[in-house]
Amino acid sequence: MPTMRDAKNLDMADPLYSRREKFLLPDGTIYLDGNSLGALSSRVPATLEKAVRDQWGNHLIAAWTEDDWWGAPLRIGDRIGRLLGAAPGQITVGESTSVQTFNALVGAARLRPGRTLLVTDPDHFPTNRYLAQSVAGLCGLDVIAVPVPDVHAFLQEHGERVAVVSYGAVDFRTGRLWDAADVTAAAHAAGAVVVWDLCHAAGALPVELDDQGVDIAVGCTYKYLSGGPGSPAFIYVARTHHGTFEPPLTGWHGHARPFHMERDFEPAPGISRTRIGTPHVLSLLALEAALEAFDGVEMADVRAKSLSLGDFFIECADQHLVSLGFDLVTPREPGLRGSQVTLAHPEAHQLMRALIARKVIGDVRPPNMLRFGYNALYVSHADVHQAVTTLRDVVLSGEHHDSRFRTPTLIT
Amino acid sequence: MPTMRDAKNLDMADPLYSRREKFLLPDGTIYLDGNSLGALSSRVPATLEKAVRDQWGNHLIAAWTEDDWWGAPLRIGDRIGRLLGAAPGQITVGESTSVQTFNALVGAARLRPGRTLLVTDPDHFPTNRYLAQSVAGLCGLDVIAVPVPDVHAFLQEHGERVAVVSYGAVDFRTGRLWDAADVTAAAHAAGAVVVWDLCHAAGALPVELDDQGVDIAVGCTYKYLSGGPGSPAFIYVARTHHGTFEPPLTGWHGHARPFHMERDFEPAPGISRTRIGTPHVLSLLALEAALEAFDGVEMADVRAKSLSLGDFFIECADQHLVSLGFDLVTPREPGLRGSQVTLAHPEAHQLMRALIARKVIGDVRPPNMLRFGYNALYVSHADVHQAVTTLRDVVLSGEHHDSRFRTPTLIT
Repeated sequence: MPTMRDAKNLDMADPLYSRREKFLLPDGTIYLDGNSLGALSSRVPATLEKAVRDQWGNHLIAAWTEDDWWGAPLRIGDRIGRLLGAAPGQITVGESTSVQTFNALVGAARLRPGRTLLVTDPDHFPTNRYLAQSVAGLCGLDVIAVPVPDVHAFLQEHGERVAVVSYGAVDFRTGRLWDAADVTAAAHAAGAVVVWDLCHAAGALPVELDDQGVDIAVGCTYKYLSGGPGSPAFIYVARTHHGTFEPPLTGWHGHARPFHMERDFEPAPGISRTRIGTPHVLSLLALEAALEAFDGVEMADVRAKSLSLGDFFIECADQHLVSLGFDLVTPREPGLRGSQVTLAHPEAHQLMRALIARKVIGDVRPPNMLRFGYNALYVSHADVHQAVTTLRDVVLSGEHHDSRFRTPTLIT
Repeated sequence: MPTMRDAKNLDMADPLYSRREKFLLPDGTIYLDGNSLGALSSRVPATLEKAVRDQWGNHLIAAWTEDDWWGAPLRIGDRIGRLLGAAPGQITVGESTSVQTFNALVGAARLRPGRTLLVTDPDHFPTNRYLAQSVAGLCGLDVIAVPVPDVHAFLQEHGERVAVVSYGAVDFRTGRLWDAADVTAAAHAAGAVVVWDLCHAAGALPVELDDQGVDIAVGCTYKYLSGGPGSPAFIYVARTHHGTFEPPLTGWHGHARPFHMERDFEPAPGISRTRIGTPHVLSLLALEAALEAFDGVEMADVRAKSLSLGDFFIECADQHLVSLGFDLVTPREPGLRGSQVTLAHPEAHQLMRALIARKVIGDVRPPNMLRFGYNALYVSHADVHQAVTTLRDVVLSGEHHDSRFRTPTLIT
């Protein structure tokens, strides 16, 4: 029977507990939606103020060199690389995840000319599916939707026709963690290239891009990396592909000699060829400041705490929620979980709105899922206990049937 | 003989003179590089502080609705639309200019299936040329480089094969303003679609997108619109194409029902189909605050002042610089100028560096051009006079031959 006392004991033994001080969370709010928008890191406001007033305001155009705005996409990429098992010089940051996904998929397809299949997850995040369709149309490929558990069998039968295998490391709805090393090895055995979406993995759990021989990966930085609303996305291209990766988004920042302003495109050597246009400097510098919250943190410790929070969430849910009509969607097995627990309930939408009115924040995903993401840097076991018991209280009180929670909202 | 007294008289008669107070320019600096990075608008720091602390920090995920982050790309698009002669609902803001250019060119080509030529300027900004090549490769087109003065003749001969005509409204090096209405009409007579790059026009001079029947336009917001370093770019698609424009960057924000998270892409009705991924909210909100500097300003007045500054610059250059080895690259005819004056000089690079050391800031472009951009909202005739006479003093003193100005810099 997990109690608040148990929660507090777990928190006392948590070596990451004090990291919460590096975030400016509103008092009284339990924030379990950091898998959608990470919380505000305390270093951001002052860094941004300085970037605006000193760099933009006073240095003006010279800030591109004096303050090394030019170097930011690679510099921040390397900083993220440490959290993803990527040696320096293989990641750049800029644009949205959708744009990076497009660049990744076309670039990947071009590494395997003559092959015609783009294999992806029927349950992949919408933007990945839409972009797979778009890329397939432009590159003359066929999109084949294969659930992750079936990918081995599919590759054994059709592997020689597969150009690209594109999956998410963690399912955005269910929180199911896939075995990226295993899928990557199977794709490579078939001669295909992998593109991993790390949106729900980066900053949430250890990723070993170099060690697993991943070809290409993309991900957002505003979830577990807490880079701020719409903070720029990253793209990883393994060094082995730097000479041959041909991005379709041939912006001038990716040119070998951008300031020579030559007429024809020659991609920069190295990862710089994934640069596109002038990056969103203010959003980039906010992200860079936010990443300081990870300084001195090992992803193994983040994972250990995340699993502890997940175990505890499931224990609390077993005790308080399962008998009230909730189903646990996320696997119980720790090795199969990312850093969120998803519950299904026929009244998911109204329940979440009523829960948010009580200052416990998660979100919902169609058709009936309540998502609770826990960022190990700022969520405690006490938060988890209170979230679950508050949800129980909401259900028991029936307050979610109040008419104000019934009207649909655009975003939840 | 234009004197500083003349300059000050012109400034006293300038109805936009007091707009300078809306910008935080460093004392003693003359900033003529607002055509590369616009100056800091005074509303930005407080707006950004509030966006970070109140919206991100306190409202967290709810800010997407409570603070209408979701609406920002269209809301800011409409605000820019007023300056471009575009009725509401035809512009969105997000990503970099390179990304928007890619979306625009592919989307334009798809409006003319069966036609095989993409006509563009051999002197277009590099990213436009690189992306034209990339798009041509993906869409099965041939890129034909036709200088603007030759486009009529080309279209008369080959017009029926032309899918897309893509030019910049103002040449980024020379400051030459092209007749967009004339080129658009010629392209339409040939049955082609036009894509205008407004990077050096937006905020600098009146643009009449709707009245001229422009199909598609893109542009950056960090030059004359002063939106901040790498502030998001805009795309205009004329309402007449909203039902048929098919962007290749099918991010989930451009879906008809983004939060239903459906498996297949169905573009949103209207301009929302040009939305791509999660926008860079902090950079967007900085841009929105910066645009307040245009509130109550008519672009006709901006143009009148810009031309006055340009006339005065040329008069000063005639008096002080032409005899010292400078050539005027920008046309003398006011109707053929954007909002910059470009001078050619064999020692352009060193001269600009020495000039910047004296706190007069312009930039250079290969091979030998010094660019001086004047933003009518914060540049005065006195600035222009002092810039020209300082450049004269630099040349006469020979200080640009100092070794510290000889080493090449990455960005100038």
